[in-house]
Amino acid sequence: MTYCVGLRLNRGLVFMSDTRTNAGVDNFASTRKMFDFNVPGERNITLMTAGNLATTQALISLLRERTHAADDRDPDILTQPTMFQVARLVGSTLREVISYSAPDGQRSADAFGASIIVGGQIKGGEPTIFMIYPEGNFIEVSQDTPFFQIGETKYGKPILVRAFEPDLEFGDALKLLLVSFDSTVKSNLSVGPPFDVQLYETDDFDGAVTTRIEADDPLYQTISSGWGEALKEALDSLPSYKV
Amino acid sequence: MTYCVGLRLNRGLVFMSDTRTNAGVDNFASTRKMFDFNVPGERNITLMTAGNLATTQALISLLRERTHAADDRDPDILTQPTMFQVARLVGSTLREVISYSAPDGQRSADAFGASIIVGGQIKGGEPTIFMIYPEGNFIEVSQDTPFFQIGETKYGKPILVRAFEPDLEFGDALKLLLVSFDSTVKSNLSVGPPFDVQLYETDDFDGAVTTRIEADDPLYQTISSGWGEALKEALDSLPSYKV
Repeated sequence: MTYCVGLRLNRGLVFMSDTRTNAGVDNFASTRKMFDFNVPGERNITLMTAGNLATTQALISLLRERTHAADDRDPDILTQPTMFQVARLVGSTLREVISYSAPDGQRSADAFGASIIVGGQIKGGEPTIFMIYPEGNFIEVSQDTPFFQIGETKYGKPILVRAFEPDLEFGDALKLLLVSFDSTVKSNLSVGPPFDVQLYETDDFDGAVTTRIEADDPLYQTISSGWGEALKEALDSLPSYKV
Repeated sequence: MTYCVGLRLNRGLVFMSDTRTNAGVDNFASTRKMFDFNVPGERNITLMTAGNLATTQALISLLRERTHAADDRDPDILTQPTMFQVARLVGSTLREVISYSAPDGQRSADAFGASIIVGGQIKGGEPTIFMIYPEGNFIEVSQDTPFFQIGETKYGKPILVRAFEPDLEFGDALKLLLVSFDSTVKSNLSVGPPFDVQLYETDDFDGAVTTRIEADDPLYQTISSGWGEALKEALDSLPSYKV
């Protein structure tokens, strides 16, 4: 499984993904699920993947390959004029990969499925995030739905629902995401550190920050162990239920 | 969907279940999922159900009917000598119901499936809790795994993992369960109040407490709204992540 979240804040976009991949509990490894297609001064695009690893790797390879073949007739993620067109391109490429793996229709297509979060900003447009389904169609973040999750989404959702605010600072958004990821890791073996992070401020096309938070990162450790204590104190601050 | 939790504390057992049942979002209703088979002075048995409603209702009806037919050769949940035998009886009755609904084997059996938590104490034995699978087999709580969840279990698991302690008071255990249920309700439409509760102290066969917590229960409201605030304060108490 996988856990990836993309948040749209007032000040910009934040993405975080885990790196564990597994086919059964006796076959697991660490693999990158976050990819960027940035053009300095012009566009920041971040893509995160969940689902069948063969499908998602083929998707990324195709998208990358087509940015190099200048005279190819295939469309190129680095030259799409808007984020909407980027999402359409990723969706159609995803459908292309799945139909190649699963020529026998809907049923086997499920097994080769994948979900994608793609977000970013292209100069002249607004920063935005899309969630793309295996069928190639997609939905966009809005004021009411300012974040998307893919993969093992349930454990980490309650804290996002309760504590997300669109005017969070980047550091506080990362703290919130780390708590959401840590809750998932503590409950589910198929999600694990290190966590990949990318973030950028609106209209800053040269300042994208890309980093990886390791399991032994001291600040992550502080947040993880502090969260257990803070939760217990939060619980203590509420009245007991009297029967 | 459904959400039910059974906890074994040092001082006794606590059970909580939601009451929402649905077949699609346009067809939902409130139904009881907690049932007790208590004999004053001799046994407390609580049973909670998740899964196909026709299956679980038939299971409960069969178990109840067989407690009335004194000369029936079918075994009776009120006369089983141990909790282990109670779990075996519930498991075999569950399998009987599913195989009656799904004579065509594994595949349709899935659709008629159900999961059961059954716990309690019979005089002379220890209080314990079992989780029963649709196949009729089951597992028991232990020091390492002191609670079971069935139904929509993921949203409410992180807080249980972090804050459960075997020496909790009943009032604090109910508070913890309400936070776990409230986190689920806030994230998933298929789980909803009112919540049914049953609890009893070890070796007290006359003091079982059975109650229902309504959505407008003032103490539940306080815990629900207070939890949102307490979580934000808990998050504020941690350091931001600096990139």
